[in-house]
Amino acid sequence: MNEITKNLLELVSDLSGVPGGAYNIREDGQCAGRQSTEHIQINSKTDKPGIDIIVQPETKGETVYIPACVTHSDVNDLVYNDFYIGDDADVTVVAGCGVHTDGEEESQHNGIHRFFLGKNARVKYVEKHIGVGKGTGKRVINPRTFVDIGEGGYLEMDTTQIKGVDSTNRVTRGVLGENAKLVIKEKIMTDGEQTAQTNFEVDLNGIGSGADLISRSVAKGRSKQVFRSKINGNTNCSGHSECDAIIMDEGVVSAIPELTANHVDAALIHEAAIGKIAGEQIIKLMTLGLTEEEAEAKIIEGFLK
Amino acid sequence: MNEITKNLLELVSDLSGVPGGAYNIREDGQCAGRQSTEHIQINSKTDKPGIDIIVQPETKGETVYIPACVTHSDVNDLVYNDFYIGDDADVTVVAGCGVHTDGEEESQHNGIHRFFLGKNARVKYVEKHIGVGKGTGKRVINPRTFVDIGEGGYLEMDTTQIKGVDSTNRVTRGVLGENAKLVIKEKIMTDGEQTAQTNFEVDLNGIGSGADLISRSVAKGRSKQVFRSKINGNTNCSGHSECDAIIMDEGVVSAIPELTANHVDAALIHEAAIGKIAGEQIIKLMTLGLTEEEAEAKIIEGFLK
Repeated sequence: MNEITKNLLELVSDLSGVPGGAYNIREDGQCAGRQSTEHIQINSKTDKPGIDIIVQPETKGETVYIPACVTHSDVNDLVYNDFYIGDDADVTVVAGCGVHTDGEEESQHNGIHRFFLGKNARVKYVEKHIGVGKGTGKRVINPRTFVDIGEGGYLEMDTTQIKGVDSTNRVTRGVLGENAKLVIKEKIMTDGEQTAQTNFEVDLNGIGSGADLISRSVAKGRSKQVFRSKINGNTNCSGHSECDAIIMDEGVVSAIPELTANHVDAALIHEAAIGKIAGEQIIKLMTLGLTEEEAEAKIIEGFLK
Repeated sequence: MNEITKNLLELVSDLSGVPGGAYNIREDGQCAGRQSTEHIQINSKTDKPGIDIIVQPETKGETVYIPACVTHSDVNDLVYNDFYIGDDADVTVVAGCGVHTDGEEESQHNGIHRFFLGKNARVKYVEKHIGVGKGTGKRVINPRTFVDIGEGGYLEMDTTQIKGVDSTNRVTRGVLGENAKLVIKEKIMTDGEQTAQTNFEVDLNGIGSGADLISRSVAKGRSKQVFRSKINGNTNCSGHSECDAIIMDEGVVSAIPELTANHVDAALIHEAAIGKIAGEQIIKLMTLGLTEEEAEAKIIEGFLK
C-alpha cells in the first residue's frame, strides 16, 4: 500500500492502517490487502475484476471495509463488487473511494455494486467519495449501485461527496420485496466547473415496502448538478423523495423527481426546494461575530451534516 | 347555432344564448356568431383558421367569450387564436370547449392560443373542457397555450376538465418579463380508459417574476394521467409547482416536475402527493349518514373545488 493510498483511506474510511475484521483494499485496480472473517467471506471474481462479499446468515454487528483508491493520473478503474447478505444478518459496509491525480491525464473509478439482501437482513452502507492531488487531470467517480431487498430487509445508504470530484454520474436502482425498506441519504457539494448527476430509481414491488430518498446538495462556483429520482409504487407501499439544494455564485441545479402510482394503495410524496442561503441566516451569524464567509461555511456545514 | 352547440355553450361557458360584450362562437370549425365591442376587436385571421382578439389598453372589467363546440363525430378542428392585451387592461377570457360525438368516429378540437400581455396588463383566463354524446367515437381535446407576459403583467389560468374527454394532451408554455406573474390552476378528472397529459413549461426571465402552478387531479377506472411541469428560474425570481392526485380503482398517475435554478437568486419549490382517499375521511362522512359512494363523491367534489 503506498503513502497516497494510506492518506486516501483515512479520508474516505476514517481508517489509519488496515482495519480489524473483514476488508478489501483496492489500489489502482489491484488488491492491496484483504481479510475474511469467520462470518464474512471475500473472494475474487473469476470472470471480471472485483469481489464477492458473502455475509453468513445471522452475522451481527460486523463491519466490512472495501475502500478503493486511485493514486495517480491516467487510471481507468472498473470494478464489480457483489454483496450477498444472509437472512437476519445486520452489518455495516464502508465503501469509500478516493481519486488522486498528479498529472494532466484524467483518472476515474467506476464501481458497480450489487446488494442482495436475504429475509430480514439489515445493511448500513456508507460511501464517501473524494478527489485530491495537485494534478490538472480530472477526477471522475461513477458509482452504480443495485439493491435487491428481500422480505423484511432494510438497507440504509449514506453517501457523501463534498470535495475534489470533477465529474460524477451516480446511478442507484432498488427493487423492494414485501415489507422491505430502503433509505438513501445523499450529500453532494460541487465547486468550480464540476458536474454531478444523480439518478435514483426504485420499484416498490412488495406489499408494505417503502423508500425514503433524501438529497442535500450545494452547488458553488460554476458547477452544475442534476438530481433525478423515480419512485414506482406498484402495490400497497409508500415512497418519499426530497431534494434540497443550495445554490451559490453561478451554480446551477436541476431537480427532476418522478412519482408513478401504479396501484390504488401506493402513497407517494415528493418535495424539492432550490435557493440560496437566506440573507437573515447570514446576518444572524454575523451578529455573533462571524465574517460573511464564516457564516456561509457554518450554514453549509449544518445543511450537509 | 344548432341545439347541441347551445347545450355545450351552457356546459362550458355557463352561457344561455349569446353573451353580451365581445364573443366569438366556433361551431364545427366555422364561426357561428361574433361580436366586437368598442374596446375589444375580434378579427378573422387571413392566413390560417382562427381569430385575433385585440384588447385596447386600459380596457377594464370586460369579458370575452370564445367557446368552441364540436357537435358530431368525424370532425378534426384546428384553430389558432391570438390575444393581444394592451397595457393596463384588465379582462376575463372564457374559452371553453365541448366535444359531442354521436357516431363511431373520433372528433377532436385542437386550440392553439397565444397571449401577449402588455405592461401591467391582467388577464383571467377560464377554460372548461367537456365531452358528451352517446357516440362511441373518441372525444379528443388538445389545447396548446402560449403566454408571453410583459412587465408587471399578470395572467391567471383556471382550467377544468372533469368529464367525458377521452384523450387530452395539454401543453402550456409561459415566458415572463420583469415582475410578471403567472398562476395556473388545473383540475382534471379521468375515468374509464381515458388518458390525460399535462405539460407546463415556464421561463422566469424577468427580475421579480413568479409562477405558481397548481394541479389537482382524480384518476378513476383504468384511466392514466401524466403531469409534467418545468420551471426554469433564470434570474431573481420565484417558482412553485404543486401536484396533488387522488387515485381510485385502477387509475394510474405519474407526476414529473422539473425545477432548474440557473441563477443564484432563483427560489424554486415543488411538492407532489399521490394517493387514495384516506379511509378515515370516508368513515367520518358515513357516520353522518352518507353511503360510501356518496362520501367519496363529496370528498372528490371538495378536492376539485
